[in-house]
Amino acid sequence: MTQKGIGIGLLGLGVIGSGVVKVLLGKADGLAKQLGAPLLLRKVLVQDVSKHRTVTLGPHQLTTHAEEVLAAPDVDIMIEVIGGEYPATEYIKQAISHGKHVVTANKEVMAKHGFELLSLAREHKVDLRYEASVGSGIPLISSFQQDLAANEISAIHAILNGTTNYILTRMSREGLPFSAALKDAQELGYAEASPANDIEGTDAAYKLAILAGLAFHTVVDSQDVYCEGISRLQPQDFRYAREFGYAIKLLAIAKRDNGDIEMRVHPVFIPEDSQLAKVDGVYNAIQVESDLAGNLVFYGQGAGALRASSAIMADVLTIARNICRGAVSVPMIQINHKLAVKPMSSIKTRYYFRLSVADRPGVLAQISEVLGRNSISISSVIQKESDLESQTAVLVIMTHPAEEKSVQSALKEVGQLTVVHEVGNFIRVER
Amino acid sequence: MTQKGIGIGLLGLGVIGSGVVKVLLGKADGLAKQLGAPLLLRKVLVQDVSKHRTVTLGPHQLTTHAEEVLAAPDVDIMIEVIGGEYPATEYIKQAISHGKHVVTANKEVMAKHGFELLSLAREHKVDLRYEASVGSGIPLISSFQQDLAANEISAIHAILNGTTNYILTRMSREGLPFSAALKDAQELGYAEASPANDIEGTDAAYKLAILAGLAFHTVVDSQDVYCEGISRLQPQDFRYAREFGYAIKLLAIAKRDNGDIEMRVHPVFIPEDSQLAKVDGVYNAIQVESDLAGNLVFYGQGAGALRASSAIMADVLTIARNICRGAVSVPMIQINHKLAVKPMSSIKTRYYFRLSVADRPGVLAQISEVLGRNSISISSVIQKESDLESQTAVLVIMTHPAEEKSVQSALKEVGQLTVVHEVGNFIRVER
Repeated sequence: MTQKGIGIGLLGLGVIGSGVVKVLLGKADGLAKQLGAPLLLRKVLVQDVSKHRTVTLGPHQLTTHAEEVLAAPDVDIMIEVIGGEYPATEYIKQAISHGKHVVTANKEVMAKHGFELLSLAREHKVDLRYEASVGSGIPLISSFQQDLAANEISAIHAILNGTTNYILTRMSREGLPFSAALKDAQELGYAEASPANDIEGTDAAYKLAILAGLAFHTVVDSQDVYCEGISRLQPQDFRYAREFGYAIKLLAIAKRDNGDIEMRVHPVFIPEDSQLAKVDGVYNAIQVESDLAGNLVFYGQGAGALRASSAIMADVLTIARNICRGAVSVPMIQINHKLAVKPMSSIKTRYYFRLSVADRPGVLAQISEVLGRNSISISSVIQKESDLESQTAVLVIMTHPAEEKSVQSALKEVGQLTVVHEVGNFIRVER
Repeated sequence: MTQKGIGIGLLGLGVIGSGVVKVLLGKADGLAKQLGAPLLLRKVLVQDVSKHRTVTLGPHQLTTHAEEVLAAPDVDIMIEVIGGEYPATEYIKQAISHGKHVVTANKEVMAKHGFELLSLAREHKVDLRYEASVGSGIPLISSFQQDLAANEISAIHAILNGTTNYILTRMSREGLPFSAALKDAQELGYAEASPANDIEGTDAAYKLAILAGLAFHTVVDSQDVYCEGISRLQPQDFRYAREFGYAIKLLAIAKRDNGDIEMRVHPVFIPEDSQLAKVDGVYNAIQVESDLAGNLVFYGQGAGALRASSAIMADVLTIARNICRGAVSVPMIQINHKLAVKPMSSIKTRYYFRLSVADRPGVLAQISEVLGRNSISISSVIQKESDLESQTAVLVIMTHPAEEKSVQSALKEVGQLTVVHEVGNFIRVER
């Protein structure tokens, strides 16, 4: 603790950074009373000092030189909200090396470099906290680290990206095509101009990597998370899903499986009466299965400046409380062993296939022969929307559990049948 | 920390106590590895040493003399799972006075004596944690204390009692009368032989008092929680609720209201598409509205030995980690001011009335005249189920927001009208 209170440095003054400043300044009295010491914002790293901002800071508080924040002697806790892998990773390392505690909202950095950074922090006897990196203001990191500490966690099923959940909700409710739903999301500010990170599942994959590492006490390589986005989905998939009693969601799934783990992000059919199926719009929800606490669900808005500020300030306050009572504050790292990640080709689940086929006798026989030969057994099949003119029909098939690699090779073969015009889509089914 | 590890004392070896012992023994190696020190169960207070038990403990580990556990020099952390107000309160005080950290699952003790006990613990420089007292394994206490520490919480709406939620679910789904649903719940072990604490809302009121104190940083007198149970509900109330688009739930509600707070437990109509309406069976769900984190929902099973063990062990591990790193471990108490509790008579909400009336012209006119004179405005009214033989009909009325005391006096007056056979029920509406 510096002389007159606890010094805060801030890296980044974008949407989230400005939110943090508003809370730090607007709630200064209450927070000081709670802690017994004030939180003092010392220095903020920005790209352009002269830019007009929604928060009022003295010109001496802003700097474009990272070193002025990272090495400032009056800074105890450094908040990183720049986002992206570089230079954020380097800044965090430097801050730690200068003996600063670090609070970050950066999922990419924590997913890719978390173990290294946490170890570095322990070495330098400082804390590194990252509650805002997953689910924003929903208490997840602390729940895994503290509240579920005695549990063995067997599975996580989660909606971790509000942008894609918003798009899927619009597609499902209004029958919108993907492109129209995305455009609306962009106009409403729910999706970025370059939405790839969200819609391709990368954002959710980073978050899943962080949660899986905590849940399974292992070091996860975020590259090991299988990742598939939502752009292949079509309005008719939602209609057929509903007919079978399912909703379509982009789920992030991490499971223990005989000593290995599965980690994957992709669209799934989930029963429409399940908890996660009912999560609509920009909300996130994280379902955890554990041996003691049972089935838990955490639900809330996983994005936005205020939501992130809630989590960032919780981390700042935890560190500040430790500083105030003179306690050692270092990251909890609990690594039991590196678990093997099951390759996607060997996961086993049920599947939905949508095929465009010739509308004539014997077609189903040919398709089922291919599936059967690949050890895929059909649980139900319906033929939809015959088009008399083009003599095509849509065949919707639900399978019993089958192995991903058998499914992929069967679909390839099915696609080559002359009676099959197109393999329209395939979607995995959970539960 | 005692010489060879962290000593644990246990008060009570019933269902929850046995669950805790199973976890302590069954997970001993993993927990020791996590902590860097073993958790050693030293002494257990029981009523009868010779009773057959599902857990195997040495005869020297069991005692019927509280003092042998409370004052044991080799006990660092005392777990209290006796339940009930006395002697648990006294035992906790004694343990604290002997310098033991305490972990309790006791909602009644914490609701009635929480502030006194937490203050005593701070005085003796020991910790007192109570995560299991509300929502069992759902992380609530720690979320309020830590994760939401920077938030101003404006409202809590919660299903805090699994027994009543199970009964309401059966009544709603199957049209069962209360007594039959209760009997089934008892046969399945979801309700006790003496179910008063659950069905009269007392259990939920204790839990709400604990949460409201944490959320609003105030000292709550649990007597100030208005409390009404579910035994007045009839199958037809569920049918009418559904017709208006509502579900019926026993909600625990705590709200800020112009500097005062509202705290009440009673059956409510809530919109059937709301998060809480979808919580079925023995599950609990706690919805929190806050300025930064927004709208959060925590969902899980709020009862059972394993669920409670999850929360109890989380508390034990938090204290143990502090002991291991030599940090001061005392309760967080943050009391800003004692807030006034709004009397029930002055709360304002919408209402549902079900009246049994004479089936003849002019009846509605008489009833609306009484309501109007009491400043209660009708939002919709339907007449149901005319019985030609007895010439009675059921009148279902939904009102606009009105003050509780006006409603109570109006209902009294309505009940005295000769055309009204019976005021069948009235239920408050949330949102």
